[in-house]
Amino acid sequence: MSRPPRPSRSPRGAPRRRPGPGRTGGGGADRRPAPPPQLRSELGGDQVEGRRAVLELLSAGGRTVRRVLLAEDQDPSPQLDQIEELAQRLRVPVETVPRARLDAQARTEAPQGVLALARPVEPVPLADLCRPGRRGVPPFLLVAAGITDPRNLGALLRSAECAGVTGVVLPRHRSARLSPTVAKTAAGALEHLSFAVVGGVPTALGELRELGVWSIGLAGEATQSLYELPLGDGPVALVVGSEEKGLAPLVRKRCDALAAIPQHGTLPSLNVGVAGAVACFEVARQRAAGAAKP
Amino acid sequence: MSRPPRPSRSPRGAPRRRPGPGRTGGGGADRRPAPPPQLRSELGGDQVEGRRAVLELLSAGGRTVRRVLLAEDQDPSPQLDQIEELAQRLRVPVETVPRARLDAQARTEAPQGVLALARPVEPVPLADLCRPGRRGVPPFLLVAAGITDPRNLGALLRSAECAGVTGVVLPRHRSARLSPTVAKTAAGALEHLSFAVVGGVPTALGELRELGVWSIGLAGEATQSLYELPLGDGPVALVVGSEEKGLAPLVRKRCDALAAIPQHGTLPSLNVGVAGAVACFEVARQRAAGAAKP
Repeated sequence: MSRPPRPSRSPRGAPRRRPGPGRTGGGGADRRPAPPPQLRSELGGDQVEGRRAVLELLSAGGRTVRRVLLAEDQDPSPQLDQIEELAQRLRVPVETVPRARLDAQARTEAPQGVLALARPVEPVPLADLCRPGRRGVPPFLLVAAGITDPRNLGALLRSAECAGVTGVVLPRHRSARLSPTVAKTAAGALEHLSFAVVGGVPTALGELRELGVWSIGLAGEATQSLYELPLGDGPVALVVGSEEKGLAPLVRKRCDALAAIPQHGTLPSLNVGVAGAVACFEVARQRAAGAAKP
Repeated sequence: MSRPPRPSRSPRGAPRRRPGPGRTGGGGADRRPAPPPQLRSELGGDQVEGRRAVLELLSAGGRTVRRVLLAEDQDPSPQLDQIEELAQRLRVPVETVPRARLDAQARTEAPQGVLALARPVEPVPLADLCRPGRRGVPPFLLVAAGITDPRNLGALLRSAECAGVTGVVLPRHRSARLSPTVAKTAAGALEHLSFAVVGGVPTALGELRELGVWSIGLAGEATQSLYELPLGDGPVALVVGSEEKGLAPLVRKRCDALAAIPQHGTLPSLNVGVAGAVACFEVARQRAAGAAKP
């Protein structure tokens, strides 16, 4: 998959960079000063909390990590050991600080005694998300069209990454950013996904169509079942709307198809992150079934 | 679906009980005193917070609601109006209290200005979960074998209900109960599911087998793909393990089959609630596909 020249992110699926002790890798301590606020990425991602998310940040080696803070007096844990070991290898400064100081700096409820400061996640142009991946796999995108709850967005990013999504489209306004809560809930997915930020989702859907990507909007009231759509054959983008209002009217209009996940219970609707996850795994299932055909 | 004689819960899919103003329905104010602590249901569910969960509690009419507390000075909202209207119809006392008092009594982070006190959810015998449902639909069970995070359990119950799960098996120990956080995250699913509490999951799986229910354990390392199993044909129970350790060795051994959801990303694993949701919707998909066959 094509990526912009800087900052370098390891290509999806490539062996994880594990520089030896004598080497300062791309994930090593950054001697450049932090960029002034106005130059910071609009996406965020610069503060990562929680053991799994920090471990994934360090081991993916895609972003420069400036500093890791660990709370004092934590019970031993293999994950903490791995974090310390990786940070040492990458020459990332590790500071052990009183729990109260870490909690004061943390912006999630439960940072699990670990906080890392890193270069923000840099967005890429929309067209970059639309190129085939390794081994010619067609692009598989997720358009999070207005998810404002950071836990919902983080959970959806984690599930999407596990299902094989390669690129995520986020609108500039009325969407959660890659805040510490998103980063923690995503459990490291930020390090393995490419993100494009767009001014308007309807326009972006038009561009996706021109780039040969078929967009499917998830809409509970759609008459078409998601399971009846041929999702496994080519470039596809799943479009998920906001928690409260679903897809905005113009987004709905610009999707190439609308589809529902058939519901079999009494409750009115699935959580938006779960609906997105079920849809992502349906794309994955159909792709795998197609690949298995003789 | 068979249910124990009391407390009455409206059968799944039956029209929701909406008693007129002159009638005290099963969901009406309870004049009996609260049961002493030692007689309270071991499942919990007696304190429900959050607008959607309280609305579902009142409208399902399955459990007696003792009292609804509303915080003062809330912005108008259709959900709040519905809650007040339903409570009035059911003759459930509604108290408007200062926000601070409601928050002090609340046990979730964001009760959204609403809290209800109700009779606890009563467990049913395991065998009751295994009888065919309305229109002869074979039982579809979820065994939550050691989910301790209340948000994970709540989210899974919500998704499971939407996928058509009818009964849930929870172990007596090492599992979250139906706490206010579970109830809120489940968004009302507690009112539409039947629950059995078991001493040990391995023994329960043996009983399920004798009752004709096929148990499938979700295990990331299983070689069998979930999508290759015939899940749509008969009574089935999905078994989901703990967040940290997955399925315990003896549970794994007692499952009739183990299956994995094929992963296509870099992260090591899905969130347990999402994995359970994806599996539940695969059962639903296969059942619907089977029903659609001529």
